[in-house]
Amino acid sequence: MTDLGLPVPPGFTITTEVCRHAIAHGEVPDGLWDEVDQAIDRLESATGRSFGSGPVPMLLSVRSGAKFSMPGMMDSILNLGINDEVVQTLAEWSEDPHFAWDAYRRFVQMYGNVVLGIDDHRFQEVLTNLRAKRGVADDSELTTDDLERATRMFQKIVEEARPGELPTDARAQLRGAVEAVISSWGNQRAIEYRRISGIPDDLGTAANVQMMVFGDLGNDSGTGVCFTRDPATGRKVSYGDYLPRAQGEDVVAGIRNTIGLDDLADLHPECHSQLIATMDRLENHYRDMMDIEFTIEKDILYILQARIGKRTAEAAVRLAVTMAGEGLIDRKTAVTRVEPASLEQLHRPSIGPSAPKPALSGVAASPGAAAGKVVFDADTAVELAKAGEEVILVRPETTPDDIHGMAAAAGILTSQGGKTSHAAVVARGMGKPAVTGAASLIVDVSTGVASAGDIDISGGDLITIDGTTGNVYVEPVELIEPESLPELEQILEWADAIRTMGVRANADTPADAALARERGAAGIGLARTEHMFMGERLEVVRSIILSNDGPRRQEALEQLEQLQVSDFEGLLEAMDGLPVVVRLLDPPLHEFLPSRLELEQETVRRVRAGRGTDDLREMSEQVARWEEDNPMLGLRGVRLGLMLDQLYRMQARAAVSAYKRRLADGGNPVLEIMIPLVAAVEELRRMRLVIEEEIDRASENDDISIPVGTMIELPRAALTAGHIAAVADFFSFGTNDLTQMTYGLSRDDAEGLFLRDYLEQGILESDPFQTLDVGGVGRLVKLACEEGREANPDLTLGLCGEHGGDPATIAYVRKLGLDYVSCSPPRVEGARLAAAQAELST
Amino acid sequence: MTDLGLPVPPGFTITTEVCRHAIAHGEVPDGLWDEVDQAIDRLESATGRSFGSGPVPMLLSVRSGAKFSMPGMMDSILNLGINDEVVQTLAEWSEDPHFAWDAYRRFVQMYGNVVLGIDDHRFQEVLTNLRAKRGVADDSELTTDDLERATRMFQKIVEEARPGELPTDARAQLRGAVEAVISSWGNQRAIEYRRISGIPDDLGTAANVQMMVFGDLGNDSGTGVCFTRDPATGRKVSYGDYLPRAQGEDVVAGIRNTIGLDDLADLHPECHSQLIATMDRLENHYRDMMDIEFTIEKDILYILQARIGKRTAEAAVRLAVTMAGEGLIDRKTAVTRVEPASLEQLHRPSIGPSAPKPALSGVAASPGAAAGKVVFDADTAVELAKAGEEVILVRPETTPDDIHGMAAAAGILTSQGGKTSHAAVVARGMGKPAVTGAASLIVDVSTGVASAGDIDISGGDLITIDGTTGNVYVEPVELIEPESLPELEQILEWADAIRTMGVRANADTPADAALARERGAAGIGLARTEHMFMGERLEVVRSIILSNDGPRRQEALEQLEQLQVSDFEGLLEAMDGLPVVVRLLDPPLHEFLPSRLELEQETVRRVRAGRGTDDLREMSEQVARWEEDNPMLGLRGVRLGLMLDQLYRMQARAAVSAYKRRLADGGNPVLEIMIPLVAAVEELRRMRLVIEEEIDRASENDDISIPVGTMIELPRAALTAGHIAAVADFFSFGTNDLTQMTYGLSRDDAEGLFLRDYLEQGILESDPFQTLDVGGVGRLVKLACEEGREANPDLTLGLCGEHGGDPATIAYVRKLGLDYVSCSPPRVEGARLAAAQAELST
Repeated sequence: MTDLGLPVPPGFTITTEVCRHAIAHGEVPDGLWDEVDQAIDRLESATGRSFGSGPVPMLLSVRSGAKFSMPGMMDSILNLGINDEVVQTLAEWSEDPHFAWDAYRRFVQMYGNVVLGIDDHRFQEVLTNLRAKRGVADDSELTTDDLERATRMFQKIVEEARPGELPTDARAQLRGAVEAVISSWGNQRAIEYRRISGIPDDLGTAANVQMMVFGDLGNDSGTGVCFTRDPATGRKVSYGDYLPRAQGEDVVAGIRNTIGLDDLADLHPECHSQLIATMDRLENHYRDMMDIEFTIEKDILYILQARIGKRTAEAAVRLAVTMAGEGLIDRKTAVTRVEPASLEQLHRPSIGPSAPKPALSGVAASPGAAAGKVVFDADTAVELAKAGEEVILVRPETTPDDIHGMAAAAGILTSQGGKTSHAAVVARGMGKPAVTGAASLIVDVSTGVASAGDIDISGGDLITIDGTTGNVYVEPVELIEPESLPELEQILEWADAIRTMGVRANADTPADAALARERGAAGIGLARTEHMFMGERLEVVRSIILSNDGPRRQEALEQLEQLQVSDFEGLLEAMDGLPVVVRLLDPPLHEFLPSRLELEQETVRRVRAGRGTDDLREMSEQVARWEEDNPMLGLRGVRLGLMLDQLYRMQARAAVSAYKRRLADGGNPVLEIMIPLVAAVEELRRMRLVIEEEIDRASENDDISIPVGTMIELPRAALTAGHIAAVADFFSFGTNDLTQMTYGLSRDDAEGLFLRDYLEQGILESDPFQTLDVGGVGRLVKLACEEGREANPDLTLGLCGEHGGDPATIAYVRKLGLDYVSCSPPRVEGARLAAAQAELST
Repeated sequence: MTDLGLPVPPGFTITTEVCRHAIAHGEVPDGLWDEVDQAIDRLESATGRSFGSGPVPMLLSVRSGAKFSMPGMMDSILNLGINDEVVQTLAEWSEDPHFAWDAYRRFVQMYGNVVLGIDDHRFQEVLTNLRAKRGVADDSELTTDDLERATRMFQKIVEEARPGELPTDARAQLRGAVEAVISSWGNQRAIEYRRISGIPDDLGTAANVQMMVFGDLGNDSGTGVCFTRDPATGRKVSYGDYLPRAQGEDVVAGIRNTIGLDDLADLHPECHSQLIATMDRLENHYRDMMDIEFTIEKDILYILQARIGKRTAEAAVRLAVTMAGEGLIDRKTAVTRVEPASLEQLHRPSIGPSAPKPALSGVAASPGAAAGKVVFDADTAVELAKAGEEVILVRPETTPDDIHGMAAAAGILTSQGGKTSHAAVVARGMGKPAVTGAASLIVDVSTGVASAGDIDISGGDLITIDGTTGNVYVEPVELIEPESLPELEQILEWADAIRTMGVRANADTPADAALARERGAAGIGLARTEHMFMGERLEVVRSIILSNDGPRRQEALEQLEQLQVSDFEGLLEAMDGLPVVVRLLDPPLHEFLPSRLELEQETVRRVRAGRGTDDLREMSEQVARWEEDNPMLGLRGVRLGLMLDQLYRMQARAAVSAYKRRLADGGNPVLEIMIPLVAAVEELRRMRLVIEEEIDRASENDDISIPVGTMIELPRAALTAGHIAAVADFFSFGTNDLTQMTYGLSRDDAEGLFLRDYLEQGILESDPFQTLDVGGVGRLVKLACEEGREANPDLTLGLCGEHGGDPATIAYVRKLGLDYVSCSPPRVEGARLAAAQAELST
């Protein structure tokens, strides 16, 4: 900013070279302090002030300045250059003894704490006692005498703890502060932070020495914050706050009412026009919306800080497009200016500004707000929704049995689970607001009451949840519906022109498919068929699994086949002309059966009620046949397909029948069949023969070509991809399961028991179920891409699962040359944008 | 053999070149048949017989001869060169019309079936009817007329199915047979077999044309089998069977009584001495014990086949050592002559020759035989064993709860599971005989009766199991105790001198450790601590897990610590001077808790009996906290260690205390601590700090150095081995779990539901839990070895788990440069031998 000619408080920088020398030799380079003295001399003559004396005393600050921001290091020591004499001079010059003594006590406190390592608690105790004695809440309300007394007591604390180490000489104070900042590079927290963040240890930190300026030096001083555009909407309007006679913190704290920039023009016309010019200058220089802190000291404007301004998703999109229109940035830059994950919220209602205080809170699992009547079970949710009610499904946690209820609900609230729980993942997939893990809530489904402290929530009560913040209101709250944003269409159009990687959606229903298409998905990358086996069809599915009676099983299979034909027809119709990848049944069969534990619990109830239990015992015995200790690692996917091939045959037949119906209706269906959980090429080879047999039979001499591929979701599939690729038309990386197997970690189990602790404690740097673990799982994906393509140059490569909507993952797989990613419909727009950003960053 | 000058029936070979030409061009090369005609002319003049005419007719055989034995291909067509005229000539020459017509009907049957593809069933039907009419059991008892009638009916069958395709001309018969053999290279079964066995498709097969000789041509003919040494003991004694006037099959079928070689000397003195010379010649040529088939046709000896003889484990060891002593082979060759896996049975009792017919059979899960009283639960097993009884533990299947009972039992019998079930794996580890998966047996533990058909077995009944064959006898059977075999010590000494890779044992008790040491283990590579948490201690362990009361948990921990000190002391004492790797607790906590399903079942019983259930409900709620859907992928190993660090701290303290006690007793303990289930380097880094803190504290200023390492048992650990190695002193590949995660397949679940089917159907070529899957899991091991060693050149590399005793795995990891393998004590000798063989094969 100094180079731009802006009014920055003057100062100088001690470079990182000094720090590196100090690390290497245990001391600062010879001649450093002479150079510092010369720099201070130059500062004094430039400003007409004196460091450590009158008539106009200059105080200095020292701040560390590393290449990367490092919260683990100390960052600043203020008010250097004050002592018993200077405080008097300062009081005289400023005509404000209160200000002078406040500066002095701050110096002693900060030097004592930051440089000499004395616990800040000891200083705070003194201030607390003084405030109590005076009956005030804020330090600024203490009298000058109080501040002088505090200063003296602080000096005593320091003298006792570190005798003789609090310098009174200004230059000695500066040396102490500079050395402390430089050596903080080597403190434990900083080292740890660098290790975790991958910052090299040999960079070193600089120390910035700068003149202090004061916004509380009488009525012709003040301090403020302004934005070059409106950070809420991105529109080009005046946007700022100014507070006369105040320090920076006061503006943010909101203790006193601020004035706008237009009013500043009246108070300080010259400063105002200088500020407006500076704002233009900075925005033109950084070519982005700027957030600027400034101080006016005795009618002179100083710019303290300027940074790229934070913004809402709406503002980000509008800024990017309008700035590109103004020629400030090009389209490519515009595309990089929007956070892909933020796009989702542009389509969701939000909590209005008049919202009350929330009653409880949980994990912000899926963004957006929803209000409705509480229901405690999926069936009631469906029933009420059919009757036109908005409902919020409240559960301890959700399971695949609740899917139809989740689909019917406006929002989901659970007391257990976190960002990666079943409820969270499914809600994000459906684009529905969800708050999970509201831990203070006890949901008793059997009695139909959820309680948290003295709050009781019954079925039918109106509540509001905010999945963007995790807040829960036990009352209806005004929701703001999203407006359509033409700039969004514009920036996505630019992104589409840039990106080379395709974006498909994971969708299991025609409604999801339609939404995905609306958001720009180029097909369905993953149509899970297991959801189609739930709900009303569960009884049919059970009779297929449990029936020992051939004809009855056959009948049930035929019944299910008719339903599946409609399922697939709906998907193919919604995605007409675009590919639809149907994945054959994946989960273990007992997911469709009642749990033995629940059957026994029901037995206990019946015995107590004196009723018969023979049917339960029989069911339990049948279910026991399918029981597995680790179903995730058991009989599922292609294994099930090979052992009980009627199921997969039925699904293949149904898919081809749907395809033919679409053709007959003049549609343009594009169908692909995907076989899950392949670990060995022989599984795919055999299953493919079975599927192709069904395709040939069902196609009845029509020449139908339907690509058959596989999920790569087991480490061994990735490790033997070269073999598997020889019998696959496409790979789709099922990174959810691949992550589970590679880590040996079940997401559902780990979430509740230790995954959150792992993330909080930094044992894992990020949730591997959100962002692909490049170092482990990513190596498998890379290897499979390389060896798969080598074995079969025509192999199509895709990725489905949660990671498909994650920008970091998209950037990684773009480098690997994937043809497409597939994600939930609400994340499609973000994925389009992220794919463009990935393209630009390579 | 012809080159050795042995009396082989004369013939010639059509080389593989002809086959390759036929594959490439769809027909045999020009001039082939001319060459064949010339070869037959030479045969005729050499033998004085005529092909297709008198006076002495020559019949020929055609056999395929591929580089690798391929059961998927046809192998022989016999008696070529016969027709209505020749059969008469043959009858006259042999003076045996029965023989002549039998040869004719065999030719028609074989040509019809093998060359023309007519179902053999149709021919068998004719013979069956003839036998029934004549009231005899064997075709040889049919009259000459019967045989003539059969021949005519066979000709009719062929003529109907393939009109005009049964040649009467001898040379046309030969051409048909040769073409059929050559084209069988391309049949579906052969292609499939080659694919599975990795045999190249372009090798092709040869066709061997050879003169037929007949052992049933009157009393001066006969056929026999001999071994150059005794295949049961390996001792150098005369060993053979001869049957006058017989064909090869008759010797094997055992219909008539054979005579020994000494008696042959009386019958055919010249042939006998020629045979003895041939045996010496062959043994000297092949430098191994030979199994020889011979035929005497009209007092002329022919050697039909000679192959390396199959032998018992005892014979193999004795042969190898004595042949090395004779200078026939060198020591290295001797070491390669013994199958490592066979050594186990040298230490186990076996079923005597007088055994009755077994009552039922199951899977031969762990070799050796055992007899004892039936018990149905582990506690009774322990009780009776303490009272000095031999017991057989009979269960539907075993679980970790049964370990103490399995340890006390002489043998284990289960109705479920297979070669890789819990019972099988643990029994092999303990070196105890086991029969698993005796599927016809229904074990009702609650009533204490096991039944199979009309057999009922009650507790206390005497039964005998043979884990070498899978047979079960419901009576006591005479067992033969193994004798000590000095040659075994000798060959293992030679193996030890050759091998470079160490062999340790997996042992959890001092008794196991002592056995391992006796078998030559150089330490314990894996001491699992979870078994130490079972049995009588289970209550203490439960109170640690379930107690919400700090002091009570602390007390239980201290109690367990004292017990663990003794556990570790016993191991260190048994292995004094050799390393003991203690693995900290690995399984999920709820393995130590009662199952919720069983608690509910008990609730049902109590409610029915009108008793209270509050304690059960309470227990169920506590247990629910630890419940996981996929415990294998849940809170276990280092994850548990980090979340509940008191447990790991306690184990580390106990290990160091035991170490110090051993030092104080003048011992030489070598302790290593292993942290399981590491997926991310940060887990190991933190846990290592915790462990080292405890080591430092427990060592009380003594300078104790205890290496700390980790299992590599998750794919991610292997993929990030370069990072993990930086904080590990050693890796031990936990290939059981690594295989489970890489395949996404739980061994226990898969075994019952599909793994056996997969192996039977050839979807998996071998059981990846027995032999390391080189193409998948092996790649991870390789990568981890390379990147681990690169990051930390001092890293020790070992492998523990089932694969540690598998010769193929040992050969693979030897190439990767592993320092040692660790296997169950009974497999240690085999592993020593396999390591030497691996060394010799590189």
